[in-house]
Amino acid sequence: MAMQYYKCVVGYDGSRYKGWQRLKATDQTIQGKIEAVLTKLFKVPIEIQGSGRTDAGAHADQQVFSFFVQDAIETEVLRKQMNRYLPEDIVIKEVVMMNRPFHARYEAKEKTYLYRVWKAAYPPLFERALVSSSDLPLDIESMRAAAEHFLGEKDFRGFCTDKTKKSTYRKIKRIDVVETENEVQFYFTGDGFLYNMVRIMVGTLLEIGEKKRPVSSIEDVFLSKNREDAGPTAPAQGLILVDVKYQ
Amino acid sequence: MAMQYYKCVVGYDGSRYKGWQRLKATDQTIQGKIEAVLTKLFKVPIEIQGSGRTDAGAHADQQVFSFFVQDAIETEVLRKQMNRYLPEDIVIKEVVMMNRPFHARYEAKEKTYLYRVWKAAYPPLFERALVSSSDLPLDIESMRAAAEHFLGEKDFRGFCTDKTKKSTYRKIKRIDVVETENEVQFYFTGDGFLYNMVRIMVGTLLEIGEKKRPVSSIEDVFLSKNREDAGPTAPAQGLILVDVKYQ
Repeated sequence: MAMQYYKCVVGYDGSRYKGWQRLKATDQTIQGKIEAVLTKLFKVPIEIQGSGRTDAGAHADQQVFSFFVQDAIETEVLRKQMNRYLPEDIVIKEVVMMNRPFHARYEAKEKTYLYRVWKAAYPPLFERALVSSSDLPLDIESMRAAAEHFLGEKDFRGFCTDKTKKSTYRKIKRIDVVETENEVQFYFTGDGFLYNMVRIMVGTLLEIGEKKRPVSSIEDVFLSKNREDAGPTAPAQGLILVDVKYQ
Repeated sequence: MAMQYYKCVVGYDGSRYKGWQRLKATDQTIQGKIEAVLTKLFKVPIEIQGSGRTDAGAHADQQVFSFFVQDAIETEVLRKQMNRYLPEDIVIKEVVMMNRPFHARYEAKEKTYLYRVWKAAYPPLFERALVSSSDLPLDIESMRAAAEHFLGEKDFRGFCTDKTKKSTYRKIKRIDVVETENEVQFYFTGDGFLYNMVRIMVGTLLEIGEKKRPVSSIEDVFLSKNREDAGPTAPAQGLILVDVKYQ
């Protein structure tokens, strides 16, 4: 019997969650919450595949996940029903039926993350869950020059906390360092990112912006492949997955 | 022995709280949280006076409170210590020592509230605690015309849920109805506001904007002084106290 494949776009405020990935059933995770609701709606156990994991406390404006099921529910009905039963910090933005097998992780071509740093000792009250902060002067041009060194296909073993034996090569296509009146915003677009990789790149760039380490230290980490040579892991709450592309 | 009087400015995200006013000791209130921290820092029981109460779920960008104590702590030290011990959704913005007795409620001359309505079925994910929402077409000009009827010194008994025998006369000095790309924002400035008064004025203005009631119905409520003739109480989360003036 043919299966119906779904592609869904979801936004979430990750503040209350232990990240995307369902681990123990008792943990509060985005995946766990969504699977529980889908299982209830379809009346059969549903497992979903995210385009990737997001860390505890990190957010998504556009995360994509897939699943399949035997007896379909119409897309707009399903979207509304999911939003009715999900907590208000998880919002299903789009539900699409695919006319072929679809896997949100295997088929993801490109992801974009945004990392926000508020230029003050503390973030503003009403955005405290969404931005990190720094009241040290930041040299934007040094950070831009340093960011260039991340571009291309490279071994990011020194810029992640993965202990995996799988490939740690990733390709970063674009990095933008944007300065606004109150913030510095880092945009990273690549084919994929390792565990904590964006936050470690940001932590390293910030140390360069603060003149605590030279621009050239990025290449040193690519050579040593040693996590301890990179900067600290920037706090999760500044991180937001903003886009996943499939072609 | 002379007492030291303090004036403090505080901002808070009221989402988690049962409003400003401490009621039972077990309730989560802004006043209760602040008093607990001050009592700990000064090592004597401290009671504070807010410029007024805010409702459960409503917010403040600039709320003012006062207290006095025998043995003073320097203002900047006190501000930092308070922020260290307060939860992150309550932020002390300013601490000033007064060289005379000062009472934040009795001396308040003018308050400004903002009420935000997002023009869609749901508020955006990351602002869901801060705005209300409506996807009905709103006639801004009718709401502006209706708002004029609230101006001046009037008996607002029909626009509050106070069951007090005290005066329900209040003076509203200014109302602005601002339309932005995504929102309608209502600003109310007056010498004071009764319980739920801003939210009931907004609920009534929205019904006028939706053409569910005529502009003239405002005057009808001033005549009947009957709460049931006014519109519904708009949800608390769109309400934020933005300013309190003392001279």
